Amino acid sequence: MTSSSQGGYGGGPALAPPVARLIEQLHKLPGIGPKSAQRLAYYLIRMPEREARQLTDAISAVKDSLGFCSRCQNITEPDVCGICSDPARDQTRLCVVQEPLDVLALERTGVFRGLYHVLHGLIDPMGNVGPDDLRIRELLRRIGEEPVSEVIIATNPTVEGEATAMYLHQLLVPLGPRVTRLARGLPVGGDLEYADDLTLTRAFEGRQDF
Amino acid sequence: MTSSSQGGYGGGPALAPPVARLIEQLHKLPGIGPKSAQRLAYYLIRMPEREARQLTDAISAVKDSLGFCSRCQNITEPDVCGICSDPARDQTRLCVVQEPLDVLALERTGVFRGLYHVLHGLIDPMGNVGPDDLRIRELLRRIGEEPVSEVIIATNPTVEGEATAMYLHQLLVPLGPRVTRLARGLPVGGDLEYADDLTLTRAFEGRQDF
Repeated sequence: MTSSSQGGYGGGPALAPPVARLIEQLHKLPGIGPKSAQRLAYYLIRMPEREARQLTDAISAVKDSLGFCSRCQNITEPDVCGICSDPARDQTRLCVVQEPLDVLALERTGVFRGLYHVLHGLIDPMGNVGPDDLRIRELLRRIGEEPVSEVIIATNPTVEGEATAMYLHQLLVPLGPRVTRLARGLPVGGDLEYADDLTLTRAFEGRQDF
Repeated sequence: MTSSSQGGYGGGPALAPPVARLIEQLHKLPGIGPKSAQRLAYYLIRMPEREARQLTDAISAVKDSLGFCSRCQNITEPDVCGICSDPARDQTRLCVVQEPLDVLALERTGVFRGLYHVLHGLIDPMGNVGPDDLRIRELLRRIGEEPVSEVIIATNPTVEGEATAMYLHQLLVPLGPRVTRLARGLPVGGDLEYADDLTLTRAFEGRQDF
């Protein structure tokens, strides 16, 4: 057993303290295991000073300059984000997503030209995340203030995503807008034979005319 | 197609410039694809200021304070590393490895109590890496100056690792020391760094003459 003062990486005298500290910090990041953290650390050590500086500057910049869009709650640099301040976007449609990455994914498709609302999470009683921890108050305020005729709920098709969608549906319908959600079905390019039972059931129930 | 000024991540107005720059920097790291870079970027954005500072400080620290051990060429903070300056280590055995991570892997097993020599690479004609690009001169100088009776070559069991081992063998044998290499207990084509401790221990104990 190695002592915890060595960071648990078994380095002992083989590991200079700054290297051990860097590995420890990298290991905290999501998806970075101990081996990846080691690899990344030695990559950073060999990296030219200038490139390492670009990385640390980029990290510092997001901590210093970013905030939330006062309208859609997406992460942005000025107060109102590029999508919300674009007059060409359809102001009557609002797409509700879990996180900023979902906005990116939908923007890549080009299928939606309305506005977004980022919840920054999903209702998850097991993880101690309730409605008050999400940007739902801000969503309700927008429904009252903006000319929204349709709210498209685009949460993930998971237990938490479905629960959040149902919760929002009940909350929003009395306020007037049409409330829809993304179709459930077989993934394009997928194989029916390998689809899980629930996906296949939803695809069947939601069968559409040609 | 998105313009390259948007970093190629398809963000368009959905992506604040500091976020795009951070994703771009993270994407340069080994093993971090575009999706992982996005995930990491948003994780860093949400991270408490203090923790992000710890990470950037850890990166800056390795750039500022580290150098090479003047004896074994491992990455270290003081001039001579902890292993080389430990009088309890066997001064007559030298284990030659490709990179610092290999020292960590061998130290974890505890099977070797001698000293190391880090080449910082392998001979690789395709990758334009010749003997002069490695710390081989420093190795030869040590054989002349230190009481080395055995050199254990622990390069990876890959084409480049074998070629480097053969090259060193030819170079070292005329100088006097016994030259051995790790037993072929290691799976051919594998990577020493990822071997489990027992395999590595067996391979070390069964080291053979050329």
